[in-house]
Amino acid sequence: MSQLYASLFYQNEVTEIFSDRALVSYMIEAEVALAQAQAKVGVIPESAAIAILDIAATALDQIDFDALAIATGLAGNIAIPFVKQFTAIVKQANEDAARYVHWGATSQDILDTACILQCRAAMTHVEALIQQCYRTALVQAEQYRSQVMIGRTWLQQGLPITLGHKLARWASVFHRDLVRIEAMKSRVFTAQLGGAVGSLASLQNQGTAVVQAFAAQLQLSVPSCTWHGERDRIVEVASVLAIVTGSLGKMARDWSLMMQTEIAEVFEPTAKGRGGSSTMPHKRNPVAAASVLAAANRVPVLMSSLYQSMVQEHERSLGGWHAEWLALPEIFQLCAGALERTLDVLKGMQVNAENMQRNLECTQGLIMAEAVMMALAPHIGRLQAHHLVEDACKTAVAKGMHLKDVIAELDQVKALFNTAQILDIFKPESYLGNIQDQIDAVLQEAKGEAK
Amino acid sequence: MSQLYASLFYQNEVTEIFSDRALVSYMIEAEVALAQAQAKVGVIPESAAIAILDIAATALDQIDFDALAIATGLAGNIAIPFVKQFTAIVKQANEDAARYVHWGATSQDILDTACILQCRAAMTHVEALIQQCYRTALVQAEQYRSQVMIGRTWLQQGLPITLGHKLARWASVFHRDLVRIEAMKSRVFTAQLGGAVGSLASLQNQGTAVVQAFAAQLQLSVPSCTWHGERDRIVEVASVLAIVTGSLGKMARDWSLMMQTEIAEVFEPTAKGRGGSSTMPHKRNPVAAASVLAAANRVPVLMSSLYQSMVQEHERSLGGWHAEWLALPEIFQLCAGALERTLDVLKGMQVNAENMQRNLECTQGLIMAEAVMMALAPHIGRLQAHHLVEDACKTAVAKGMHLKDVIAELDQVKALFNTAQILDIFKPESYLGNIQDQIDAVLQEAKGEAK
Amino acid sequence: MSQLYASLFYQNEVTEIFSDRALVSYMIEAEVALAQAQAKVGVIPESAAIAILDIAATALDQIDFDALAIATGLAGNIAIPFVKQFTAIVKQANEDAARYVHWGATSQDILDTACILQCRAAMTHVEALIQQCYRTALVQAEQYRSQVMIGRTWLQQGLPITLGHKLARWASVFHRDLVRIEAMKSRVFTAQLGGAVGSLASLQNQGTAVVQAFAAQLQLSVPSCTWHGERDRIVEVASVLAIVTGSLGKMARDWSLMMQTEIAEVFEPTAKGRGGSSTMPHKRNPVAAASVLAAANRVPVLMSSLYQSMVQEHERSLGGWHAEWLALPEIFQLCAGALERTLDVLKGMQVNAENMQRNLECTQGLIMAEAVMMALAPHIGRLQAHHLVEDACKTAVAKGMHLKDVIAELDQVKALFNTAQILDIFKPESYLGNIQDQIDAVLQEAKGEAK
Amino acid sequence: MSQLYASLFYQNEVTEIFSDRALVSYMIEAEVALAQAQAKVGVIPESAAIAILDIAATALDQIDFDALAIATGLAGNIAIPFVKQFTAIVKQANEDAARYVHWGATSQDILDTACILQCRAAMTHVEALIQQCYRTALVQAEQYRSQVMIGRTWLQQGLPITLGHKLARWASVFHRDLVRIEAMKSRVFTAQLGGAVGSLASLQNQGTAVVQAFAAQLQLSVPSCTWHGERDRIVEVASVLAIVTGSLGKMARDWSLMMQTEIAEVFEPTAKGRGGSSTMPHKRNPVAAASVLAAANRVPVLMSSLYQSMVQEHERSLGGWHAEWLALPEIFQLCAGALERTLDVLKGMQVNAENMQRNLECTQGLIMAEAVMMALAPHIGRLQAHHLVEDACKTAVAKGMHLKDVIAELDQVKALFNTAQILDIFKPESYLGNIQDQIDAVLQEAKGEAK
Repeated sequence: MSQLYASLFYQNEVTEIFSDRALVSYMIEAEVALAQAQAKVGVIPESAAIAILDIAATALDQIDFDALAIATGLAGNIAIPFVKQFTAIVKQANEDAARYVHWGATSQDILDTACILQCRAAMTHVEALIQQCYRTALVQAEQYRSQVMIGRTWLQQGLPITLGHKLARWASVFHRDLVRIEAMKSRVFTAQLGGAVGSLASLQNQGTAVVQAFAAQLQLSVPSCTWHGERDRIVEVASVLAIVTGSLGKMARDWSLMMQTEIAEVFEPTAKGRGGSSTMPHKRNPVAAASVLAAANRVPVLMSSLYQSMVQEHERSLGGWHAEWLALPEIFQLCAGALERTLDVLKGMQVNAENMQRNLECTQGLIMAEAVMMALAPHIGRLQAHHLVEDACKTAVAKGMHLKDVIAELDQVKALFNTAQILDIFKPESYLGNIQDQIDAVLQEAKGEAK
Repeated sequence: MSQLYASLFYQNEVTEIFSDRALVSYMIEAEVALAQAQAKVGVIPESAAIAILDIAATALDQIDFDALAIATGLAGNIAIPFVKQFTAIVKQANEDAARYVHWGATSQDILDTACILQCRAAMTHVEALIQQCYRTALVQAEQYRSQVMIGRTWLQQGLPITLGHKLARWASVFHRDLVRIEAMKSRVFTAQLGGAVGSLASLQNQGTAVVQAFAAQLQLSVPSCTWHGERDRIVEVASVLAIVTGSLGKMARDWSLMMQTEIAEVFEPTAKGRGGSSTMPHKRNPVAAASVLAAANRVPVLMSSLYQSMVQEHERSLGGWHAEWLALPEIFQLCAGALERTLDVLKGMQVNAENMQRNLECTQGLIMAEAVMMALAPHIGRLQAHHLVEDACKTAVAKGMHLKDVIAELDQVKALFNTAQILDIFKPESYLGNIQDQIDAVLQEAKGEAK
Repeated sequence: MSQLYASLFYQNEVTEIFSDRALVSYMIEAEVALAQAQAKVGVIPESAAIAILDIAATALDQIDFDALAIATGLAGNIAIPFVKQFTAIVKQANEDAARYVHWGATSQDILDTACILQCRAAMTHVEALIQQCYRTALVQAEQYRSQVMIGRTWLQQGLPITLGHKLARWASVFHRDLVRIEAMKSRVFTAQLGGAVGSLASLQNQGTAVVQAFAAQLQLSVPSCTWHGERDRIVEVASVLAIVTGSLGKMARDWSLMMQTEIAEVFEPTAKGRGGSSTMPHKRNPVAAASVLAAANRVPVLMSSLYQSMVQEHERSLGGWHAEWLALPEIFQLCAGALERTLDVLKGMQVNAENMQRNLECTQGLIMAEAVMMALAPHIGRLQAHHLVEDACKTAVAKGMHLKDVIAELDQVKALFNTAQILDIFKPESYLGNIQDQIDAVLQEAKGEAK
Repeated sequence: MSQLYASLFYQNEVTEIFSDRALVSYMIEAEVALAQAQAKVGVIPESAAIAILDIAATALDQIDFDALAIATGLAGNIAIPFVKQFTAIVKQANEDAARYVHWGATSQDILDTACILQCRAAMTHVEALIQQCYRTALVQAEQYRSQVMIGRTWLQQGLPITLGHKLARWASVFHRDLVRIEAMKSRVFTAQLGGAVGSLASLQNQGTAVVQAFAAQLQLSVPSCTWHGERDRIVEVASVLAIVTGSLGKMARDWSLMMQTEIAEVFEPTAKGRGGSSTMPHKRNPVAAASVLAAANRVPVLMSSLYQSMVQEHERSLGGWHAEWLALPEIFQLCAGALERTLDVLKGMQVNAENMQRNLECTQGLIMAEAVMMALAPHIGRLQAHHLVEDACKTAVAKGMHLKDVIAELDQVKALFNTAQILDIFKPESYLGNIQDQIDAVLQEAKGEAK
């Protein structure tokens, strides 16, 4: 991807983790761990492992990335030419140790393990961002728990809700996202070490011990068997991020709709150079929403690529595995970018209570028809209340009157309620059902989760 | 989808659960549960709930499906015309009770809850199928744990493995699938009840109690808040099925490749009318694989549709929600169909050990080059062993000789090994690394899970 | 797909073409054409072709669809069991002719040719629908060419346009769609006849003549070679439909946004049972939009399935070909359904000019800032005009005044324009650029295309 | 995307066209053309246009790309900060001219036009690559027109074909690809110039003339109306590339399957550092195939993103437009990369005729069963021939004999054919149907297209 777009769609730390340089550094980490594990088990000399560890510290700066790029095109993956370069670097320092670099491993062992290390590192950032979004959404839900606004369904005005309810619903999404991530970790952050066909044949009877030491070294879990061709873990990591991103897309859709000039209820925070237009001074572009929505368009299709790529041949595949290399890092980057932008909006969102009130009024009371009916029902029966209100609505629409005024003139109503009572019935805040219970439940759930 | 293709791609029980008729029956179940919950809480009369329950038992047969189909096109969802028909059916029996049908609910409450009930029912079948696949794969892994075959990477012969290792890896996939499903259940099998905008406004201060009673009635979990517009649960259910289907696609790819006329190692079970060709008597079409691979092509894109559809507007959306109705049932049906076919193949697969042996020989010993090198290394050093074997391989290829014969003639080798020993080194079964450990680990994991 | 949803998402004629029954009838048509072609070339007796033709007329009713469905699951495609049943039907009437049924063909020849016949038939309906949409959009573009409304970018109010301009842009889309379809026809509506591996081996030296006669019989073009494994034509047909559907999604998004309660500029036509809500009398659900948007969510992913399925093995593939059977019919059905609904809306759309005017006013003149600047620039220079208007805008926003009133009080302005002139500058209809030229160009383009 | 992977998946020239630097240069080209067009029409002074042209020549080197990247994140697109920087650069040289930079245009005009210029430039390379693939495939089709090999269906051996037939079918694909591209050019290589909402309001009555001059300047076609929100052209360009890439995936699948160790019929060309393995000397990884197959996995989903992104709001959208920026360049790059690799393989493919012969023999004559039947049919009737051959096949399989030997012993056969004749019937090259006609038709088609 263009560097120019990185600031629009990505998040710095996560992008850094998936940079070429970082990928190579994770491959070095994997090679070092392999050497150390094999020294522990007694497969290679302790001295070789020490030498490899020593050299690794400065190896990254000695890697010729241009040569690596060219060789990758021929070799079909990065690890093959990387191992050659890394071995040569080790050899310069310690010819003997160089013989033990990458001992018994296959290129996919190193790439898969490096990939898992990247995922784990990136997930830390993603989790932290979700945590921040969660806490912010909770704070805002509490802050706006009584801020009445219209609820909308099918893009039409429905009944009133509060902004806090919307935010509580979003908070509950972040909660579930965090639970999902936690549940997945031990299953997916797993070492890969199998050699050419998954048998670690060249390690003879020491394979199992080396896998265990290798995983321990990297603080990864030990898989029951190699998984070169069984890619469910890789896809599972991504699928959780895709769910996160989809939910962020929903939020961005909402706030961009609320930012519409004619609605003008909630706005992205302002910043110099952000979303304005000199010749159209009234414009306030939802720039963050655009970025999040683009991510929510793109991550689903990258997921589709990953699911498709699971159909891998035999012990190690061609094509399917390659497709992962492009999709997984970008899913992480887009998800993290979307989280960063959403957090920014959640933190700095500007709420226009006046416009919320104005929009509640724009149907001239029709949105309160059900509330009126519910108020009358205990007195005159639900069916009669329904007919009465239905007629009143028709009258209000036909005459361009406020429903309140039509209702207030009806004898049946006058007999039951005085003007002040009628005004109360028409107050949106008096018809919010169990919204406060729901907000409390979401807040409570967060406390249950507090560490 | 065409009925003609159902037997090719789907599975009967799961297809039945997502039939029009069953969908309506689940909507009736939701309406009944709603009435019962509201009677319990005191929102509607006990007698009404009893009447609704009574009538529900025979309501399905009174539904006019043709009228329902036509009205759905106008209403924009099935629930609106369904509620009308169902109310009319109740009314015929009990006019009073009819007034309390669908009390306080919105059409999406009924459709979402019915959808969750379908998912739960279908998941029972999916889980049972995965369990059967898991057990069968374990049995076969044990059965073939020593059946040596060539391991293949990038579609090239690599080193030997055993068929049991391949099957153990597949078994471990099923194990993870089961763990994923179990972990997800309490999160996703959740009631939906929110009324028009999620506030249950017309239930006034009884909304929360009704939701709890409603969920209890259906044995679903109680959500902390309504989720009309936050669709992560729906997508999560599907994403787990997509991972299952992708793994099945991998297996089908493998066995279809092994069924190639030139390879001929493993075959789908034979059945009358299955995969043969009268004019090409040697053909044995991998019919089950074709079906599973088609599912593995299709489910990923249906997932993409679902992830995209998460971007829903406000409290209840248009379009995004609708897209779910098409994608989710088909993902279930394709996944179940792919499982059924895979189970069939796992159970009845025909293994041709002779051809496995023949294929192990087709490089004339080159696949054992590494094994020879490893055998020589302790005696002459790894580097020299490498050069010696590399030269021998070149000689073997150039002269069209078996590597064994080239090796056996080398003085350096003769000095170390006699003919019998050389033959042993060239036996594929002597170069299988920790494959038996891995198989044991997978079998052990299954015992840990046994109920 | 559920029958219940067919009325919501599909279109009757096109759905009928892709029904099981119709598919079999197209396969019969292909078999008849094959027999006739072979009789013409002299491969089979004339009498056999006549007999097959005769029986074909009533064969459809003799097909046992249930048996076909079951056999399809075993055979891996519909054509194999269909040919068996069809041959048996012919045999009952004419044992001799039965020997010549399906002579030299493979099952894929019949399925592919039937598929092309379905595509051609369905495309006729699709084209007719696009034609109607095109003409209607042109009429409406002319009708509303001067109906001023606000143009919106990034969901923010921009500058004024006319509704006719929006409709002209949509009309131009339909124009390009028609051009694309026309350009594609001769390339994609092509016969398939190759026998088992594409060589028509069993026809010996008569294969080429038979292919030509077969194509002529069906009025399909003759391919230069068989295309069992090269599926670009199938995908090309679908890709054009996907472009159509995407554009319809754009239109549906627009009108659903314009239908928002707070915007209320354009509405779907009303119909009994459509989109209303008894308890929310102000609601007017964009039901057609929901359906079109669901199609625009779904068709892209079905396209992804088709593109993926192009990766077919060797002469005839497994899995990839199967995936086509599910995707292509549904793309046709969804596209036709979306067209039908869009046509309905284009024809019956209700325009609220009053609300368009109201929305033009909602920024209190800020949307005309650029127009004011352009009016002042020739007199005081563009730069100074820019500063003056920018300041005026700030004043207007700060004081909650209409920009017109701020501007009218400025001495620099008073010196140049009187009140009437200022009012003119602020009229949205005076700042429409070349919109009328564009509408004319679109209308002109349609005349150029008139047949 | 990682630079490391560029050499594996991309093609240099096309990647360069979509680099950040080139994108900015195309935006400069658009701004220059705009100024020149406006000078021609008389909207801005000739001197300003000249100055802008002059400065443009060196402007690229003055762009601060880091600042641009940061500002893009805030502005929501590249063009806004680019115009600011470019204006400042012009201003340094000519303050007066700077006032006329980007006159009347919106950022999307510049980005869309630059995008079209990129597409046109990249399409030149894509076309040239397809042309080369086409010619090479034709040459190879002729070269191998009589090289018999087994045709395979459902991964099973079918009947014989020739390698030339396979290559001719591929050539015909390239032919159709070229026709598609040519047909599309005038429709999609179109200028975009509409100003803020597509009306070019600030150009008042000169908008139409400026659009025409602008398009002429860039040798692009003139659209009948602006298309900021109607994205079918963008998607159409990509859809043709996706079809190309899908077909390449099919070819790569074929050659990777033919490269299987057990099949070994066709190989990717060898190159130092390519696809070999030191410890597995028999391996020959299909590295080019892996790359092409990864592209064929990925491009379909990027297309899905593009189709989805067509659902754009109003006059200019948010999110949908943004998603294009990521998908379209990558589709071009992956398609070009896949073409380059396929061309390489088509040119240098190594054919092992001996193994083709060996594989034709691996069913012991069963693949010739139909040929035998066809040879007998004229003498003993088709039905009897069928029974005779069917029995012979069963005998051959049961006894492990070659079908030829079983057939040769049958009295009925002996009565008709002598041994030499039987050998002839069993020659695969005598049962190739109309394959040579098909190859000729493809070669002929190419001549018709020759320029």
